[in-house]
Amino acid sequence: MPKPKVFEKPSGVKDYLPKTVARLRRIEIQVLACMEQWGYRQIMTPTLEYYDTVGVTSSTSDKRLFKLLDHRGTTLVLRSDMTAPIARVVSSLLKDEPLPIRLAYHANVFRAFEEEAGRDAEFFQTGVELVGDASADADAEVIALATAALQAAGISEFKLALGHQGLLNGLLRESLEGQEEAQDQLKQCLLARDYVGYRYFIRNMGVPPEIQNKLEAILELRGGKEVCEKVASYTQDEETRAAVHNLCEIWEALEAYGVSDRMLIDLTMIGHFSYYTGMVFEAYSAQSGFPVASGGRYDNLLQRFERPAPATGFALKTTRILEILGPSVKEDEKRVLLVYDAAHRREAYARASELRSRQGYVVETYRADARETPEIEHTADGKASWSGRVYDEIVLMTDAARGGMGR
Amino acid sequence: MPKPKVFEKPSGVKDYLPKTVARLRRIEIQVLACMEQWGYRQIMTPTLEYYDTVGVTSSTSDKRLFKLLDHRGTTLVLRSDMTAPIARVVSSLLKDEPLPIRLAYHANVFRAFEEEAGRDAEFFQTGVELVGDASADADAEVIALATAALQAAGISEFKLALGHQGLLNGLLRESLEGQEEAQDQLKQCLLARDYVGYRYFIRNMGVPPEIQNKLEAILELRGGKEVCEKVASYTQDEETRAAVHNLCEIWEALEAYGVSDRMLIDLTMIGHFSYYTGMVFEAYSAQSGFPVASGGRYDNLLQRFERPAPATGFALKTTRILEILGPSVKEDEKRVLLVYDAAHRREAYARASELRSRQGYVVETYRADARETPEIEHTADGKASWSGRVYDEIVLMTDAARGGMGR
Repeated sequence: MPKPKVFEKPSGVKDYLPKTVARLRRIEIQVLACMEQWGYRQIMTPTLEYYDTVGVTSSTSDKRLFKLLDHRGTTLVLRSDMTAPIARVVSSLLKDEPLPIRLAYHANVFRAFEEEAGRDAEFFQTGVELVGDASADADAEVIALATAALQAAGISEFKLALGHQGLLNGLLRESLEGQEEAQDQLKQCLLARDYVGYRYFIRNMGVPPEIQNKLEAILELRGGKEVCEKVASYTQDEETRAAVHNLCEIWEALEAYGVSDRMLIDLTMIGHFSYYTGMVFEAYSAQSGFPVASGGRYDNLLQRFERPAPATGFALKTTRILEILGPSVKEDEKRVLLVYDAAHRREAYARASELRSRQGYVVETYRADARETPEIEHTADGKASWSGRVYDEIVLMTDAARGGMGR
Repeated sequence: MPKPKVFEKPSGVKDYLPKTVARLRRIEIQVLACMEQWGYRQIMTPTLEYYDTVGVTSSTSDKRLFKLLDHRGTTLVLRSDMTAPIARVVSSLLKDEPLPIRLAYHANVFRAFEEEAGRDAEFFQTGVELVGDASADADAEVIALATAALQAAGISEFKLALGHQGLLNGLLRESLEGQEEAQDQLKQCLLARDYVGYRYFIRNMGVPPEIQNKLEAILELRGGKEVCEKVASYTQDEETRAAVHNLCEIWEALEAYGVSDRMLIDLTMIGHFSYYTGMVFEAYSAQSGFPVASGGRYDNLLQRFERPAPATGFALKTTRILEILGPSVKEDEKRVLLVYDAAHRREAYARASELRSRQGYVVETYRADARETPEIEHTADGKASWSGRVYDEIVLMTDAARGGMGR
């Protein structure tokens, strides 16, 4: 196997240069400030977790986990999401804190991908978890916060698709009682958005025509409030009817938040995470084919950490948002270069210090004697260029400059 | 081997709860803003690097690197510092950018430790690299910036010890020409601050008394400007004299920066990193036995990434600074809880939205009907407690509250 070349980095990971970092930082700060206003307090968890605790509990498939061994031979993973680590913290360090608990995070997460897929192996997520509130209002809160967070990130045009894992599971269970494998196969089709495959499968599975029709009708369950009402007629099962009621309640709360006009109910939507139990949602921006946020309710995860509690949350796909946002508006920054010689050193440092104390000033210093000093060039827009770099002002503090400070 | 329990995390890594995160964030933002004012632009590099590029170039000993394999079987490492990754970026993505290049970072780095040592396996560093400036003024700049950054982080009482790898190496080489092993052994003693061992070793190595005296005298080379002058008499070697001259020049520049009263020259100080070639320094706070910052000149590292250039830099030990700083002053924050029922939902959400738009307001909402509502208790300092949590104000928007909003 050839050695990687000195300038190479592993596939799927990135360097972020200053302009990109400035944009990422702005998104991060604005989104976290928004979450903070809704009562979500920021936490940080380690990059490394035990495979046997957070690793197996996370929804990431085993082959996508980055694994390594610690010095005792115990398997560690690089965290693949923040939901499982936060469940661990809620159940340990925060175990005496009363529910509901609202937590926010901005973190890098890791997923090993096949090289060909060209997808990120390390990327940023900014999200929240609301633990200990089973109400429809709690679900509506995280969806409404997701829309506020996307706006804070600078995304204004987006739509949200709202599904319901419990409702979909109920409809499939009712129609295909005892046929778990068939249920799973249909869910796989929906997850892959393979509606042709879905239709083909139900026509060839040997179920009565009325069941076929019912299963096909799931594909049509898309729209607004009317879907809530329509789907009620599809089911007699009590558990499923409770899920319908829950979906209708969430919709009403979303109307109260004033965000329902961005929403589309889509019962074919399946959350990518196996731990979802109730509502699931994804946000799509006009500028990207991929979701820019996703979330859902997961009422069974916390019990795996021995503090059973309902929970709901979402994560912005911050790295993707960074890619679709244009360059940020340059801040009001004034870059100054002070070029000095030995005789003016003290004076130059004092001047630099004074300028740096002013709002928006960035000051570099350069000692010019005893080495070649590049020429200052003046640019068309009134700036000064020196050694290929552009400054708002270049101040010469050298004996050579004689009469003092030129520009 | 027993499985880790569900609430456990790997040894040497930490969860940061909201109060600690708020302090860490404040340090991070203030320090990066300070570095930005000095012209250092922030970059981010991946957590994972190739072992054969950044791994072997970093100064971290092999057994302290966290290693894992990618899907092709190539060895990856979790970055153990930011100096080698930044050298990689300067030599690749930034290869067309003219020198000097000033870069800043805030990053988590990883070092595998023996469990018994109880040291952090993942911790934060906030630092800068100044690439492409060999002058003494560049070294003084990073030292002066380190003092400004420590102050920005909230550390006011600290001292800096200044050594010189090139000068020390020169003195040892002159005295023990050709005896590389003996030189290394003496350096090991100095690194471990084992002055007894150092003295014992030079007395038993069979060198003439005048060499013995000279080597012993190195231990006394501590102090201010006078050390610069004194050490000049110790050497005839041209290279070593150049190092003396460099140290004196750095001192003069530090005087011009007005930071020399915090400094102590200590030629027995050895940088922990094998790549240091010139000045090295460490900062010590009154509140900690460990250094809170360290840095130095490394003129040979960049050539390993095929863009030969002199370089100097430092890193704050941000996790340690976080530990020694007291809790930060609470910001002017007003926490409000709105408790509502179905009939007041829309009104409650509108109120929450309006309050969140005000500076410093944090607003949580709680739907209270159809579940048990805890009692509101009033605390002595005029706040309201509800379900074990304290708010500045609790607003009841329910039919039960009748006459409307109580406190």
